Amino acid sequence: MFEDFLTNKQNWLNGKGPYSEIVFSSRIRLARNIAQYPFPSRATLHQKEAILKELGEAYAKVRGLKKSVFVRMEDVEELDRQFLLERHLISQEHTQSPKGKGLIVSSDESTALMINEEDHLRMQVITSGFDLNSSWQALSAIDNELSKLMSFAFLPEIGYLTVCPTNVGTSLRVSCMLHLPALVLTRRINKILEFLTRISFTTRGLFGEGTQALGDFFQISNQVSLGHSESELLADLTSVVNQVREQEIDARSVLLKKHKLNLEDNVWRALGILQNSRLIGSKEALSHLSMLSLGLDLGIITHVLRETINGLFVLIQPAHLQKQEGRTLKEGERDYIRAEILRKNLTA
Amino acid sequence: MFEDFLTNKQNWLNGKGPYSEIVFSSRIRLARNIAQYPFPSRATLHQKEAILKELGEAYAKVRGLKKSVFVRMEDVEELDRQFLLERHLISQEHTQSPKGKGLIVSSDESTALMINEEDHLRMQVITSGFDLNSSWQALSAIDNELSKLMSFAFLPEIGYLTVCPTNVGTSLRVSCMLHLPALVLTRRINKILEFLTRISFTTRGLFGEGTQALGDFFQISNQVSLGHSESELLADLTSVVNQVREQEIDARSVLLKKHKLNLEDNVWRALGILQNSRLIGSKEALSHLSMLSLGLDLGIITHVLRETINGLFVLIQPAHLQKQEGRTLKEGERDYIRAEILRKNLTA
Repeated sequence: MFEDFLTNKQNWLNGKGPYSEIVFSSRIRLARNIAQYPFPSRATLHQKEAILKELGEAYAKVRGLKKSVFVRMEDVEELDRQFLLERHLISQEHTQSPKGKGLIVSSDESTALMINEEDHLRMQVITSGFDLNSSWQALSAIDNELSKLMSFAFLPEIGYLTVCPTNVGTSLRVSCMLHLPALVLTRRINKILEFLTRISFTTRGLFGEGTQALGDFFQISNQVSLGHSESELLADLTSVVNQVREQEIDARSVLLKKHKLNLEDNVWRALGILQNSRLIGSKEALSHLSMLSLGLDLGIITHVLRETINGLFVLIQPAHLQKQEGRTLKEGERDYIRAEILRKNLTA
Repeated sequence: MFEDFLTNKQNWLNGKGPYSEIVFSSRIRLARNIAQYPFPSRATLHQKEAILKELGEAYAKVRGLKKSVFVRMEDVEELDRQFLLERHLISQEHTQSPKGKGLIVSSDESTALMINEEDHLRMQVITSGFDLNSSWQALSAIDNELSKLMSFAFLPEIGYLTVCPTNVGTSLRVSCMLHLPALVLTRRINKILEFLTRISFTTRGLFGEGTQALGDFFQISNQVSLGHSESELLADLTSVVNQVREQEIDARSVLLKKHKLNLEDNVWRALGILQNSRLIGSKEALSHLSMLSLGLDLGIITHVLRETINGLFVLIQPAHLQKQEGRTLKEGERDYIRAEILRKNLTA
């Protein structure tokens, strides 16, 4: 299932969006609940099935979801659920207890709607680079069309009703995945993360909570949405991301000015290890890919494609390894297959 | 001076001698003093000059020294003295206070005679691989011819007289340089070194005392010569080296059986780093070259030449870097040039 995603070159991983040398991807998420049903945690399986049925019929009428598929999560194998998680198309929660849960996902992976996760509907649009507005336009259009097909729980004085209070209101979560290797190398990152928390932004890692600093990726998003309009939330995140982006640019120029040889050494060694290792863990591989990515941004290496590096950040994850191999891999085998995939992709 | 040595492919570094996958080189050394002069430490400069003159004339008549040159150490620049030290042709002591000192060295570097080091004459023959007998034959022949041209200090009941009591008697020092990476990786090496000390053998590193374990090289030699005949000393060292060699062979087969993938990973990563780094210290480079050498012995890598790897053990040393660059290098520059030379030699 979803085999096409493995070779998809047009998704948010291709590094072709604006400012993608630092902003890996932009993501907009909305949460919705259908008025006549209880929240998923309180709904019966029967009610969840009704919701699945309703959305399974509605999505086909929505223009922005034309090239999408609808699946029941119980029809998706465990490995494929992990695969979708690694591709940022579903949440950790959505990989578990699949009964009554569903997913609508577009063939280009830009749009994904989780059904009966925490809320009845969690809709996301994700794009390459720093492009919150076009993501917002796309998601907003889908939301508008769906609103005409069903009745979402909404109170004029509060906004959309959601399970978690942090989502009440617009229910909008805006986030950008930033690649900040120079801020990590110059050890400026911690001050920046502290500052972001103080001004009410959340930072997470490449694969959500608890994975911070893996591959020098940091996802920045708004903490609450209640009391802020959509445009405010978008403008605030844009402003913060721009500030962090400028800090990273500054750190990169400091590295180039003061530590050029060390930087070149780090980048080339990373390439040498990735092209030669026979056993490599995910954490180590991510850290070398991060250096490679920085090296490409700074023109230190030129013969590796951006989309190759970006793709590898995800291709070396456990479920992706197994999808590529077409079989289940024991934990000991993964480091071997990971090394093989890295060599294959990075050796001319 | 000695520029030819840099490109010499026929010396003890070429790895073409017997058992050279473990025994890097074999070396025989004799110490002699000319009867009518005091030991160098007590000789006047005038007397040392007379010794230099005598040997400078004598060597030309010795068959085994036909293709040799005679130099006064004061005519050899500081950098070239370091260069000779790195090539194991002179001792640390012989690089200092060059006045009154001399060197006779053959063009293939197999034979080197230090004049007025600790003794009037320190003669060595060094060959690739495990080949003590042919070294002994060659050196013995030179010694016999010189004995006919001058009178060496000798007492029938004691043997040859030398400055240091450990050399009195035959004055023979027999040594082999062993490459023991598997004994290091399996952590068996320390027991073996302890055992060797207990049975009166000395172990040193690649560049003499205090450099132990650099590149996993261990030089094993006899501690005393008094009271033992030449053939006893040769037989004892041969026996000990064979035992250690067998231990290393056993450790290699254990690694191949139980840790093959890890071993391959180590070897390939070493190659990747050496082919890509832009800054590398001597210690790190030696350790990767050691893994590469092991990888070549075990057939893990096949596309790098033995003589290339062996040559690099010496080519990356400070004086060699400067000879190759044709200029003095500051300490910071060396790591850069070393990385460049490694890349040049190891990239197809």
